[in-house]
Amino acid sequence: MTQDFTEKQLNSRLVYSGKMLQVREDVVSLPSGHEATREYVVHPGASVIVPLFEDGTVLVERQFRYPVKEHMLELPAGKIDEKEDPAIAARRELLEETGYKATRWDFIGSLMPCIGYSDELIYAYLARDLTYCKQQLDDEEFLETSKVSMGVLLQQSLNAQIQDAKTIIALLWAEQFLKKSV
Amino acid sequence: MTQDFTEKQLNSRLVYSGKMLQVREDVVSLPSGHEATREYVVHPGASVIVPLFEDGTVLVERQFRYPVKEHMLELPAGKIDEKEDPAIAARRELLEETGYKATRWDFIGSLMPCIGYSDELIYAYLARDLTYCKQQLDDEEFLETSKVSMGVLLQQSLNAQIQDAKTIIALLWAEQFLKKSV
Repeated sequence: MTQDFTEKQLNSRLVYSGKMLQVREDVVSLPSGHEATREYVVHPGASVIVPLFEDGTVLVERQFRYPVKEHMLELPAGKIDEKEDPAIAARRELLEETGYKATRWDFIGSLMPCIGYSDELIYAYLARDLTYCKQQLDDEEFLETSKVSMGVLLQQSLNAQIQDAKTIIALLWAEQFLKKSV
Repeated sequence: MTQDFTEKQLNSRLVYSGKMLQVREDVVSLPSGHEATREYVVHPGASVIVPLFEDGTVLVERQFRYPVKEHMLELPAGKIDEKEDPAIAARRELLEETGYKATRWDFIGSLMPCIGYSDELIYAYLARDLTYCKQQLDDEEFLETSKVSMGVLLQQSLNAQIQDAKTIIALLWAEQFLKKSV
């Protein structure tokens, strides 16, 4: 598989800029030479964390996600701040959202959740040797955490009971990472 | 885990409407009683297909994805048309993008790629008993297809070599579905 289908940017316009989301509209030249418009979300990237305890449980969150109007089971995750290292963002988000610090970190892969209309890249980490400090949720964040066995979460990921893409993938990559490092 | 963190819509505004993307800005009331703004992409939903041949290979696509500026390995997938059944969308997209028709279809789960800022729901299907008819790409679509062994694709999904979220998840769910139906 070797054809070059690269689309070249002819111009780019910021067409929406909210508090959280930015959308661009680019005119591109297609491989055929014709022009087309591409609309997409500009995203700073995110980190997702699999916080694994020695007893084989994983810390998960339950929170209401307004776009999908549901309470969702998720791994801790959050956006990378400007110029922040994804590994630092992971440490910061884990502490802010759950109150935990980890001393053992492994990068387990990066995924793209929405390649059709977002440039978001999510870095996934396995976090071990966890100790509780203090949760630091911001004013607009409401969530509860709980510990669930890794085995149960993996089953729920494979059985389509968990629906959040980053959570499914990070759990499966964490398991794969652990298998390899035995 | 039982707390109610529901955010209630106070008003909703369409703040961007492109050819492909729509963005809304809603004011919501938080569990605390305070107000917040939520910005999100309104998406019609999509279907993703695992086209599995009798020889154990899967039809995958390689295409350039402008938002991430890379050629990506993906399963066939596409947006659901207005009022279209996701299962019909899956048949239409498979035919349009790859030229294949399948007579055996199984729904294997639904996932949410971007719960932080999009309401997109992706329906995943396993498609078998495939016969080639005729590819019907639209003017702005450039892609090439190839057959890759399911085993190789699963390894690449678990090893973080495939980065497209819907592709990783649909492949793993298809494998799980096949295991159960033996």
